[in-house]
Amino acid sequence: MTAADSTRTFDLPIAVDAMGGDRGPEVVVEGVLDAIENYGGKFLIVGNRKFLYDAMSARGASGHPDITIIHAEDVITMEDSPVDAVRDKTHSSLVLAAREVREGRAAALISPGNTGAVLAAGTLLLGRIRGVERPGIATILPTATDHSVLIDVGANVDSRATHLLQFGIMGSIYARAILSIADPRVGLLSIGEERTKGNELTKEAFPLFERLFAESAHHGRFLGNVEGRDIVNGRADVIVCDGFTGNVVLKFGEGLAFTFIDLIRSRIKATPLRKLGALLVRGAFAEMKKKIDYTEYGGAPLLGVKHPCIICHGSSGPKAIMNAVRVTREALQFDICGRIERTIKTFNEESRNAS
Amino acid sequence: MTAADSTRTFDLPIAVDAMGGDRGPEVVVEGVLDAIENYGGKFLIVGNRKFLYDAMSARGASGHPDITIIHAEDVITMEDSPVDAVRDKTHSSLVLAAREVREGRAAALISPGNTGAVLAAGTLLLGRIRGVERPGIATILPTATDHSVLIDVGANVDSRATHLLQFGIMGSIYARAILSIADPRVGLLSIGEERTKGNELTKEAFPLFERLFAESAHHGRFLGNVEGRDIVNGRADVIVCDGFTGNVVLKFGEGLAFTFIDLIRSRIKATPLRKLGALLVRGAFAEMKKKIDYTEYGGAPLLGVKHPCIICHGSSGPKAIMNAVRVTREALQFDICGRIERTIKTFNEESRNAS
Repeated sequence: MTAADSTRTFDLPIAVDAMGGDRGPEVVVEGVLDAIENYGGKFLIVGNRKFLYDAMSARGASGHPDITIIHAEDVITMEDSPVDAVRDKTHSSLVLAAREVREGRAAALISPGNTGAVLAAGTLLLGRIRGVERPGIATILPTATDHSVLIDVGANVDSRATHLLQFGIMGSIYARAILSIADPRVGLLSIGEERTKGNELTKEAFPLFERLFAESAHHGRFLGNVEGRDIVNGRADVIVCDGFTGNVVLKFGEGLAFTFIDLIRSRIKATPLRKLGALLVRGAFAEMKKKIDYTEYGGAPLLGVKHPCIICHGSSGPKAIMNAVRVTREALQFDICGRIERTIKTFNEESRNAS
Repeated sequence: MTAADSTRTFDLPIAVDAMGGDRGPEVVVEGVLDAIENYGGKFLIVGNRKFLYDAMSARGASGHPDITIIHAEDVITMEDSPVDAVRDKTHSSLVLAAREVREGRAAALISPGNTGAVLAAGTLLLGRIRGVERPGIATILPTATDHSVLIDVGANVDSRATHLLQFGIMGSIYARAILSIADPRVGLLSIGEERTKGNELTKEAFPLFERLFAESAHHGRFLGNVEGRDIVNGRADVIVCDGFTGNVVLKFGEGLAFTFIDLIRSRIKATPLRKLGALLVRGAFAEMKKKIDYTEYGGAPLLGVKHPCIICHGSSGPKAIMNAVRVTREALQFDICGRIERTIKTFNEESRNAS
């Protein structure tokens, strides 16, 4: 099956790996049940049969008509070596869930497990879309005005200029699907706005972006180089970088946001008067926390594989799982994988004709 | 003159480029006068004579005994191409100030001008310390517990493993001098803690760090790889990365902090009750702002050149200049340049003997 068939698969269930996360299968079951309540849909939950039955009945949902449980004897842990584990642990919940998708019995894969293993399962079992050189992980970040898409945040460590270009194409499609931005502004992350600023990689990528976006407005607008501050100030909708830089930025941002909240929380309670003030403004903090809370964004998709593959944070709770389902449904509705396949195909044909 | 002589130069004045910043020579004069009041010391202020005399007399400081004004006809602007400007604009305030240091009439250079040009002046005019492959820019960041040093934040775009190792040595010396940390914890910025995680560069650098720190506790303790979150959570005192990644991180952090403050400020005034609360907690915000305010940290030194060379933010005001003077004085007192020279020399000799 190719990605282009995925529109036909929207009535198929979504396969969810329930075992790989830090918080066990109960939170995954809970998240899926919440998702069914809010969005509907059918699910295959893959994991230890006993744990899953127990979790279902604890929620009074034994024999739920929209959930099929698939037993998996094994689990890939956070300590497992990703590629080895996906190859060797053939009875793990992740591998079985991915196989349901690969063999056409499910439309998409969600896992809160070992990120490297989900990446390996996505690439090796779901399969790369033809013409995509390297799949990339996209993530949504809050900005001053709205949200932006950062791609790649860690699927690859050493990238080439053509990989960055494809991240730009895929990120732009994702921004249209999930953020509903008709004409995304795409920036190449660098250390100065001039085209001559950057490292070897970005300097090589810059003219490729320029040519692509000049030839077809279809991909959005190319802003040229953007800088670190532009990731959050609302200037760009899609920010493209290599996976090393993106991963550092993502984890730094998480760390900074939480450090910031901790610091302000301790200072805001330093005197009795401030404590009273803190009580009055706590709603503002709750809103801020929601804005920077990754669980609101529902996981990060691996773009460039044949079916939606959503990588959730290892510590995902029910809300993160539920939001991952929402994102997965949007990805299916928008036919992201099919669009990526067609766009990359056209792009590659045009590139061949031009050269 | 070699860096080792710099201890003898502590009674020499500090040369300050007054013209290159965004906010004109007045704020530089003001910052220097504030620094003299707080810390003492002698200064050469380099720039347009008339502007500087006017600024001095506006502060009632005409003919101040600790300030010598050196006239410069030209100025390097933010738009100038750095290396060309340093080579061609021989009568610019930056080049003349750097020449005062190079020719032994001043002990250190401070400039809020074009960062690339200050970098070029530092490397070309002050000169690299023998044995240092690439100078690197260090910056101090606030963390949950205290502060950390991030190096390199943009002196280089494409680095080699041996450059990173030298950044580690220099950053460790800087942390001891400015943060008074006797035994700095040094981390290599990567995307996973295991030694096998990272890009080609960090994977090559990891064993170099391991060997160096195992052989000599003198450099501090090597934490191995650290991740983006560790830049701010207080786990590491010195975080080493290539200048591309460091520059992106620095600008992203600035952007995120200000976006964060803007967001919370707008939410905290959303209702009348919250406005009252905001009034009560405003002290907490002022403390936070101070903590993340770059002007408190007094500019970023270019480490690896023969004399202290402090690069200030282009929009530096009097306080940032004053703090840059404080940092410069600490760098001189601790003899950072001499220590870097001796440490790198010993390190290079040991490396040669080992191979």
